[in-house]
Amino acid sequence: MTEVIGGQVDLADLPLREDLRGRSPYGAPQLDVPVRLNTNENPYPPPPELVADVARAVAAEAAALHRYPDRDALALRADLAAYLTRATGVALAVANVWAANGSNEVLQQILQAFGGPDRTALGFEPSYSMHPIIASGTRTRWLPAPRRADFSLDAAEAARVVAEARPDVVFVTSPNNPTGQSLPPEELRALLAAAPGIVVVDEAYAEFSAQPSAVRLLAEFPEKLIVSRTMSKAFAFAGGRLGYLAAAPAVVDALQLVRLPYHLSRITQAAARAALRHADATLASVAALAAERDRVAAELAGLGFEVVPSDANFVLFGRFADTPATWRSYLDAGVLIRDVGIAGHLRVSIGTPEENDAFLAASKEVAQ
Amino acid sequence: MTEVIGGQVDLADLPLREDLRGRSPYGAPQLDVPVRLNTNENPYPPPPELVADVARAVAAEAAALHRYPDRDALALRADLAAYLTRATGVALAVANVWAANGSNEVLQQILQAFGGPDRTALGFEPSYSMHPIIASGTRTRWLPAPRRADFSLDAAEAARVVAEARPDVVFVTSPNNPTGQSLPPEELRALLAAAPGIVVVDEAYAEFSAQPSAVRLLAEFPEKLIVSRTMSKAFAFAGGRLGYLAAAPAVVDALQLVRLPYHLSRITQAAARAALRHADATLASVAALAAERDRVAAELAGLGFEVVPSDANFVLFGRFADTPATWRSYLDAGVLIRDVGIAGHLRVSIGTPEENDAFLAASKEVAQ
Repeated sequence: MTEVIGGQVDLADLPLREDLRGRSPYGAPQLDVPVRLNTNENPYPPPPELVADVARAVAAEAAALHRYPDRDALALRADLAAYLTRATGVALAVANVWAANGSNEVLQQILQAFGGPDRTALGFEPSYSMHPIIASGTRTRWLPAPRRADFSLDAAEAARVVAEARPDVVFVTSPNNPTGQSLPPEELRALLAAAPGIVVVDEAYAEFSAQPSAVRLLAEFPEKLIVSRTMSKAFAFAGGRLGYLAAAPAVVDALQLVRLPYHLSRITQAAARAALRHADATLASVAALAAERDRVAAELAGLGFEVVPSDANFVLFGRFADTPATWRSYLDAGVLIRDVGIAGHLRVSIGTPEENDAFLAASKEVAQ
Repeated sequence: MTEVIGGQVDLADLPLREDLRGRSPYGAPQLDVPVRLNTNENPYPPPPELVADVARAVAAEAAALHRYPDRDALALRADLAAYLTRATGVALAVANVWAANGSNEVLQQILQAFGGPDRTALGFEPSYSMHPIIASGTRTRWLPAPRRADFSLDAAEAARVVAEARPDVVFVTSPNNPTGQSLPPEELRALLAAAPGIVVVDEAYAEFSAQPSAVRLLAEFPEKLIVSRTMSKAFAFAGGRLGYLAAAPAVVDALQLVRLPYHLSRITQAAARAALRHADATLASVAALAAERDRVAAELAGLGFEVVPSDANFVLFGRFADTPATWRSYLDAGVLIRDVGIAGHLRVSIGTPEENDAFLAASKEVAQ
């Protein structure tokens, strides 16, 4: 055993802020398992043309690596605005778009600008577990609000809760992770009208949903609506870490007051732009994944599981008397799925047909 | 004029946190000028072998872009530990090293873990202006402490100030930006002994200095010392955004409680590892830049300027009756340098000999 410098110091010896004591780092287990259906990645590798284009773009950029990147990432934001305009039918300008290293960093910047001590953020649980964690990281008080027993969101009740609690920031995840349901934009309207502050609609899984984007409400609620997006899911760019948002230009100005300068590297900007040039090819997997999702959901239901309807690339299902034990049964069968902490339920990401078959075969064993 | 969605909303209309109102985003002007000596970049582009290696590494990684990166960046941290071991003579393990998107993100994570509301961070000013900005971003109260009139740090006085103010986090920048002086590790000892909490020695410019690294004090002060570094300066990797630190493993554990999951992309990890394989070639520029720094300093002194002694790749000089007007004179001569907000002074980054000659020629005009 080699001696590591400082190895004798324990976390408890450090002047850690009090609310972090006893916590564990966020993250799904990174296990080496044949079938990994636990982090909602797109199972299809980027097409060879995209890989070649990323390599070319990065090689061109690498010659200037000694120079800082464009702090405002204008070219990338223009490309994202063009994509989002095409995807939503709403004409967005570069000034409407902001980007960062994953949507987690986008959300952190939002809470640094509009949350913080003496402010509150509200979310409808169960939802994306990073929302309360990022609230904690920015010292924003977290207000959990409920969903219906079937995990759908009662829009009228949500508006009532928001009007009463008056949070500085509201998170609405649509499609909701880890449960799968979308909220149509028109149902968001009452909530937006009721919210006194910022409303973040987290559309990480929007491409998998048939529902239109909340972007179409931006013109109506420019002083409060932020729509966040990611290239990690449908875009098959989880490894590239690129999150973005659409909002009024003044919101983007506000985020520039808290962003770390040069937060997006030259390489990230170039690689993301290359990936966006192949959006049509990448997004061609979306329809196949949606069809597989519906197949998996139907087969799970046929096996007697309770299946939560999903507009995303995952399915929440149950019920299990001993959820950790069931999760372990899947793992023993070589299939890694996710225990998202909802009693009696597990979440499976939609993989390739072969991966889904492996999952369904394991499910037959579990069902017995 | 096209109408931008939400363009009618002003920053003042948004529920921005109070302390951000009226602020401007951080950053040097990004101007298109023949000679850019304002952000302390390495003026030498990466060698062609490095560029080719980065492109190869990223191309290999791009095929897996649909999968999240290694959340713990173990391979990159092992390479950084190996480099730092070689550079400092102190044997560091992977558990001693942490990395993020630029040292700004490293510092932000440190203040998220050990600073925050009801906590304080102290720095000796003038110093790196991002320290108080990141303190503000994490809502840590900033305590400015003075340097000597010649901008050097009085180590005994610094220890006394720290013992009295009892800050949760102390920043010591060595070599100090924007003034240039290093603090020898043995002079840090009293300050470390006096500090009740964390001491961050920011060594962004360490490779340019003849002083040994504070890393050699880690074994003695493992419960409080953090040494932060960057690949932006000597490594000519400003565009790649890679900052890192050396500390006790428990400190790294603490930062994993606040880091955003998957913060370092596959591409960043692969590109930084490729750049580290060429460390010897890149760092070969360091001696040339140090020699040029000494030449520039001597010539400026010969022209009658006051020159602050520098161990880094920049020189602070003065005095000017009207600093903004002098900055503008340089700009009009096609030379972009930096007004760092120190009355009567400007900072010039060391460029190639030709760039430095252009700067010195402009300086002759300014001196008249």
